[in-house]
Amino acid sequence: MPRVAEDRPPAEPTSREQKERYARILRAAARHGAAKGLERVQMHDIAKDAGVAIATLYRYFPSKTHLFTALMRSQVDQLAAMTVERVPDESPADGIARMLVRAGRELLRRPLLAHAMMQSNNATVAQTPSAGVTEVFIDVMLDAGGIADPTPHDLRLLGILEQAWYGMIISALNRGTDPQELEEDTALVVSLVVGARDAGSRTGDAA
Amino acid sequence: MPRVAEDRPPAEPTSREQKERYARILRAAARHGAAKGLERVQMHDIAKDAGVAIATLYRYFPSKTHLFTALMRSQVDQLAAMTVERVPDESPADGIARMLVRAGRELLRRPLLAHAMMQSNNATVAQTPSAGVTEVFIDVMLDAGGIADPTPHDLRLLGILEQAWYGMIISALNRGTDPQELEEDTALVVSLVVGARDAGSRTGDAA
Repeated sequence: MPRVAEDRPPAEPTSREQKERYARILRAAARHGAAKGLERVQMHDIAKDAGVAIATLYRYFPSKTHLFTALMRSQVDQLAAMTVERVPDESPADGIARMLVRAGRELLRRPLLAHAMMQSNNATVAQTPSAGVTEVFIDVMLDAGGIADPTPHDLRLLGILEQAWYGMIISALNRGTDPQELEEDTALVVSLVVGARDAGSRTGDAA
Repeated sequence: MPRVAEDRPPAEPTSREQKERYARILRAAARHGAAKGLERVQMHDIAKDAGVAIATLYRYFPSKTHLFTALMRSQVDQLAAMTVERVPDESPADGIARMLVRAGRELLRRPLLAHAMMQSNNATVAQTPSAGVTEVFIDVMLDAGGIADPTPHDLRLLGILEQAWYGMIISALNRGTDPQELEEDTALVVSLVVGARDAGSRTGDAA
C-alpha cells in the first residue's frame, strides 16, 4: 500500500477525461462500499475496478474518508437535481417529506454504503465543519420545500430537521427498521418541525 | 493480548465484592475513554487502573463494545435516578427538555467518551436491538415528563425525539457546536415534538 501524504489538497478534475475518470471512481466506490462497508473496502480494488492507476485514485482522494465523503456529496447533488420538479401547490412540509423519504429509501437500500458515507462525512466534519454535506443538504431541503427566502428561523428549523433525520436514519440502519415505519416517522417529524415554521415566523414578525 | 471467545455470555456481578469491582472497571473505562477515545483505549490499561486481572475484565466485558455499552447503560441509569425529583407543575415538554439538556451537557463535557459510548451502543444495537439503551432511555423520558400512562402515540413521539436528539448530539460532537446552542435547539425540538402530544392524543381520543 503506497503511503500518501494526506495533507496535500486533493486534486480537482478539470478536463472532460478527468471528470469521466472521477465519476468512474465514484461509481466503483459505491459498488465496493455497498458490498463490503468502509472497513473492508480496499482503495486498491476500487482503482482496479475503475480502471485507473492507484496513484490517480490517491491524487483525487487522499483517503477512504475523502472518497466516501465525495460520494455522499455527489449523491446529495443528484438528489438536488431530482428535487427540482415540484408538485404544484405542495406545502413546504410535504415537499421536504417527499424528498427525505426518497433519500432515506435510497440509503436503506444499501446499508453498508450508507454507513460508509455517513461515517466518512462525520469524520470530515470533525476536521473541517464546512467540508461536510450539511450546507448543501439544507439547500436541497429549501428547494424541495419551495422556500425561496428562508428566514434565520427557517434555517434553524431545517438544521434541526437535518440532524433529526440523520438520527432516524442511523437508528433505522442499526435496528434494521422496516422502511415503511421510517417513511411514516419521517413524514411525522417533518410536519412537526416544518409545520411550526409558519407559526414561528409569524411570532417573529409580530415581535 | 489474550484471545477471548466473544460468544460466551458476559458474567453478571452478584456479590457485593463483585459489584464493587464491576463499578471500579466502569469508572476506569470512563477515565480512559474520556482521555483516549474508543480506538486508542486498551483493555489492559483499564484492568490495571481498576486493579483487576485482565481475565476478570474480559469475563464481565468480552469486548470494548460490551464495556462501553455497559458504561452508557450505567450512565442512563444514573440519569434516571437524578430525574426523579420533578419540578411541581412542570409541563411534560419542560421536564423532558430539562433532562435532555443535562444529559447533553454531560456528553459534550467528555466528547471522546461520548463518541466511544455511542459508537459501542450502535454496534450493540446492530447485533441485538433490545440490548441497546433506547428502551431504558424512553423510560427516563417518560419519568422526566411525568407521563405515567403513555399512549402508543406518546411512545412513537418519544422514539422520534430520542433519535432526533441523538442526531443533534452527534452533530454537536462533530462540529464542536457551542453547548448553549445545543441547549436551545434541544428545548426547541422537545417543544415541537412533545408539544404535539396533547393535540395528537386528543385527536386520538376523538377518533
